[in-house]
Amino acid sequence: MNLLLIETSELSAGGDVRLAGTRARHIVEVLKAAEGDSLRAGVIDGALGTAIVQEIRGEEVRLHCRFDGETPRRPSVDLLLALPRPKVMRRLWAQLAALGVGRVLLTNAGRVERNYFDTHWLSPDTYRPLLIEGLQQARDTRLPEVTIHRQFRVLIEDQLGVPAVNEIRVRADPGVHDSIRAVVQAREKTDDSVTRPRLLLAIGPEGGWNEFERQLLEAHGFQPVAMGARTLRSDTACVALLALAHEALR
Amino acid sequence: MNLLLIETSELSAGGDVRLAGTRARHIVEVLKAAEGDSLRAGVIDGALGTAIVQEIRGEEVRLHCRFDGETPRRPSVDLLLALPRPKVMRRLWAQLAALGVGRVLLTNAGRVERNYFDTHWLSPDTYRPLLIEGLQQARDTRLPEVTIHRQFRVLIEDQLGVPAVNEIRVRADPGVHDSIRAVVQAREKTDDSVTRPRLLLAIGPEGGWNEFERQLLEAHGFQPVAMGARTLRSDTACVALLALAHEALR
Repeated sequence: MNLLLIETSELSAGGDVRLAGTRARHIVEVLKAAEGDSLRAGVIDGALGTAIVQEIRGEEVRLHCRFDGETPRRPSVDLLLALPRPKVMRRLWAQLAALGVGRVLLTNAGRVERNYFDTHWLSPDTYRPLLIEGLQQARDTRLPEVTIHRQFRVLIEDQLGVPAVNEIRVRADPGVHDSIRAVVQAREKTDDSVTRPRLLLAIGPEGGWNEFERQLLEAHGFQPVAMGARTLRSDTACVALLALAHEALR
Repeated sequence: MNLLLIETSELSAGGDVRLAGTRARHIVEVLKAAEGDSLRAGVIDGALGTAIVQEIRGEEVRLHCRFDGETPRRPSVDLLLALPRPKVMRRLWAQLAALGVGRVLLTNAGRVERNYFDTHWLSPDTYRPLLIEGLQQARDTRLPEVTIHRQFRVLIEDQLGVPAVNEIRVRADPGVHDSIRAVVQAREKTDDSVTRPRLLLAIGPEGGWNEFERQLLEAHGFQPVAMGARTLRSDTACVALLALAHEALR
């Protein structure tokens, strides 16, 4: 934990907070903080600042917080991901938040098994703590916005529709294509409105998008980009492609 | 499994092999192969080819193989990694092989805990099957060469020594530096001998290299490269940086 994240609802009007559970244990046992110590802290979806340890009593830690730092910018990469197997999804949550994703859109697709949607890893009670773990690792406060879509066509046609002017949409494809970087650079050269672009990266299911899905994505502005010659497991592919996406926007 | 990998020692002189265990079960239950079916196959550290299912009997599958395809080139990225926690190391093996790494040098460092070396995840019996799993995922036959180094200084001074002419050494650093790509491009521009470069990427322990280690790396040609503003878990950082390293060499 490189940043202690606090929920607004946990804070008193004066900036005091009492923690028990995982974070309190981490402060005492891993950070070995003592009364008077100052910790890097942040409010979820808000500003960075510091938390001064006021009192450690048994399992409880009382802190006084000041959030007078900057508010991190929302990551400029969004992810449209065909829902992977529950085991993979579980592994991904913290890594997605750590790498930095503005929105995570989890979607059905022809090659997604229906029962993948039944997992408790799609319930906010389960994934929110994992996202927070990832943010605390990466020193960010911006919780990715997560939505789950059981109808691919409705998502693409009605909800995503036409790209915003500063939005670049790409679809990772095993074929021979330009890199994410080349696509972003080409857009930045030809179009002034994308000087601060957002990138929406679509990653298909393990068997790939089917023909209908590929065409629908293409019709809604998703350009194919190379994902390299090697077939990667979904979680490895997500981490690798998000790293390339962030690098392309840098 | 996108490629069935066979050990040379399993093959008869005529190219026949009998499989039981994980691979046989995968062929029958996941690939649902029948007698006469042809599967993509490869010899570990050798050529690609095909395996024809001759007979499926209970738990055993008999195949006839022809390895008349090309032998994949050894990946041109090597990884020098400060040994991470056993849990992280376990998660990494298959992902490293899938992303493509020529050599994995696992090293001690000031901020590596001594007991990390006691884990069974460092025994070839344990990690080799995970590497093979990663290769089968990525359709590669080249098993990463793994070495374990308990003395950082001996490794860097005596074993690595001076970089080969076509070798580029970089060290991921949280500070502000050029990207891996920029470093590779600068070298390719100024030096004809690195037209087919190998990249050796050093990734430190969770707390970073200490001052002595940083200086020793610098003295042996490791240029610092940016790893982004976000602090990532070791396994996420490895996958992200290996993706950027491969992209830089492309």
